[in-house]
Amino acid sequence: MKIVDIREVTINLNGGVSNAIINFHKHTVSLVALISDQFSNGKPIVGFGFNSIGRFAQGGILRERILPRLAEIAPEKLVNSSGCGFNPGALAQIAMKNEKPGGHGDRAGAVAALELAAWDLNAKLLGEPAYKTLRRHFDVAESGVSIPVYAAGGYYYPKDSTKRLNDELRRYQELGYRLFKIKVGGGELREDIPRIEAALTIAGCGDKIAVDANGRFELQQALTMAAAIEPYKLRWFEEPGDPLDFDLNRILIESYSGCVATGENLFSLMDSKNLMRFGGMRLGKDIFQMDPGLGYGVTEYHRILKALEEFGFQRKQCYPHGGHLINLHLALGLGLGGCEAYPEVFQPIGGYSAQCSLVDGKISPSDAPGFGLEQKQELYPLMCELVN
Amino acid sequence: MKIVDIREVTINLNGGVSNAIINFHKHTVSLVALISDQFSNGKPIVGFGFNSIGRFAQGGILRERILPRLAEIAPEKLVNSSGCGFNPGALAQIAMKNEKPGGHGDRAGAVAALELAAWDLNAKLLGEPAYKTLRRHFDVAESGVSIPVYAAGGYYYPKDSTKRLNDELRRYQELGYRLFKIKVGGGELREDIPRIEAALTIAGCGDKIAVDANGRFELQQALTMAAAIEPYKLRWFEEPGDPLDFDLNRILIESYSGCVATGENLFSLMDSKNLMRFGGMRLGKDIFQMDPGLGYGVTEYHRILKALEEFGFQRKQCYPHGGHLINLHLALGLGLGGCEAYPEVFQPIGGYSAQCSLVDGKISPSDAPGFGLEQKQELYPLMCELVN
Repeated sequence: MKIVDIREVTINLNGGVSNAIINFHKHTVSLVALISDQFSNGKPIVGFGFNSIGRFAQGGILRERILPRLAEIAPEKLVNSSGCGFNPGALAQIAMKNEKPGGHGDRAGAVAALELAAWDLNAKLLGEPAYKTLRRHFDVAESGVSIPVYAAGGYYYPKDSTKRLNDELRRYQELGYRLFKIKVGGGELREDIPRIEAALTIAGCGDKIAVDANGRFELQQALTMAAAIEPYKLRWFEEPGDPLDFDLNRILIESYSGCVATGENLFSLMDSKNLMRFGGMRLGKDIFQMDPGLGYGVTEYHRILKALEEFGFQRKQCYPHGGHLINLHLALGLGLGGCEAYPEVFQPIGGYSAQCSLVDGKISPSDAPGFGLEQKQELYPLMCELVN
Repeated sequence: MKIVDIREVTINLNGGVSNAIINFHKHTVSLVALISDQFSNGKPIVGFGFNSIGRFAQGGILRERILPRLAEIAPEKLVNSSGCGFNPGALAQIAMKNEKPGGHGDRAGAVAALELAAWDLNAKLLGEPAYKTLRRHFDVAESGVSIPVYAAGGYYYPKDSTKRLNDELRRYQELGYRLFKIKVGGGELREDIPRIEAALTIAGCGDKIAVDANGRFELQQALTMAAAIEPYKLRWFEEPGDPLDFDLNRILIESYSGCVATGENLFSLMDSKNLMRFGGMRLGKDIFQMDPGLGYGVTEYHRILKALEEFGFQRKQCYPHGGHLINLHLALGLGLGGCEAYPEVFQPIGGYSAQCSLVDGKISPSDAPGFGLEQKQELYPLMCELVN
């Protein structure tokens, strides 16, 4: 058994929306295909992965550094010990040959797209959804086939922002979502409060609404926002300040009784450990959002989970950033707290396939093998184009 | 005044050497040219920069994300307030448009190559060496025209490693170097001690030898190495553990009376602040090696210097990683403690031009305008090829 070809392509994300810091108009993602020498129904079995959402495609790093390293090794080095699948951890390690430690940025997404494709491939070789493969591999207890999901949106619109926010959340509610996340920090505090109150009216209570500042605030601004939202008892306050400003996070937590969520912009075990060590995150309470698709893939993410548990945190405190099929399988397969969804934006990657079932705020993947990306109708034509 | 074209090319580094973690055989660098509409002797004045040494070229990120952002803005936005030069900080800021916070890795080098080219261009427009432009811009006191330099080498060789180390350091000594840095941690401790002792014989005393583990050690190994080298009273012990493991750095420092040096793999102000906050670095003693060429350029580096001073550190504690002409000008222009040199490896980037003067362990740049890269004979043909 071997991988006979690895292909990658940059795909554009449809996302003309803004958070407090950036506009997503020109965002891109790397879609990667691992083509195996195994066949099903006369066609090669192919694993697909991508580097999540919110950063950029990594075609340059893949083509110039990573794919040549993989081309140099003997194909059997990628096969797992049972001989009936591939070893995603070995693949990630070879991809990182001669890379220095530290500087966990763009390359972490490049490696992740490949590593995730190996999980998709393994699950397809076994003919099962990826969450089952992940549960077996990492010895995670069965815990049903659905998981809490929240609809992330509530972006800023140039006109009628609160009205459009209202319409947006109503649409999510009609789709079956019960928990929502909206952006804050894009302008003055006095503009955000009506947005939060509009969202509360729709959701019914504070613990169904999270707010996300996307790392926008300095300490004093973060404290002001925290004081202003504290009475609403919101689900969480996400990325109040710079994702690496662990002091800010700790000081904020010391003065804020609600949950804080952060981690989507930490792309390695070491960066995540620094959050655990220095960020003041509370056992059993605050939320970790590290995203395997931006941080070297599942192998590294599982190391992060182990570190969290050594620190006394629970994996139910993890809600990975992302909002797509890959992270749904990861959250379900690794026993995490829940996952995110982008029901409307970031196509063709964001949100779930029609075959997923969303009932009363909990989502189940379909029985499609792997991550089921073939059922994502916006993405499927691009996958076909890449391998044909 | 405007920039009429920006070009970039990937150049291969000649470096078949290894440290404790990686081999540099396939390392690359991005060389960037900012071509202005100003002329000197009938030729356009061009600023050149590159993203230092030790990571990789960033052509993908430059071509796909950064250059399109710069192409979109009005050229006058890059001109500085005096109208007689360009604004490197504005250039870096535009290069980072719609990039999320955190994840300071490859993109930090891509931005740096451009930002440094703007400093080279500004100095050439003024017809002066770049260190003078930097001193004036950042209001740094005059302090002579030479600066301490150490020869970084002492890599591992496949055969006769100690003998070849000996020969290598003797060659550096004949060139005029008095301070040397050698690699440790590539194998067993018992192999490193004879290497250190051989180096000591040549250098004459411990404070002329630094050792560099390149982030190789776990805590216990780092403590063992520290205990073994403590009697030699070495100049510094560099990157004992993972560059982001601030706890390891702090614990090591608590038990080691010698200097510790680190920071070359931290690529942003926030990462550097975390080292200052959590890494246990001692005021007036330990060494910071952040490298502007890997971390967004001089504008960000100057923010780091300001933060260091707010924490009570001195800029004389800074010896930027790199070992090339750009960092010689930066170290001299910003009043740092000294700079590194790679006299033999990493061509065409490493080491200095023949016009630089090295006397008794202190180096002076020539009077060539800008960083004087045109005088680096191995590099000059590649610069010509890029702009002609």
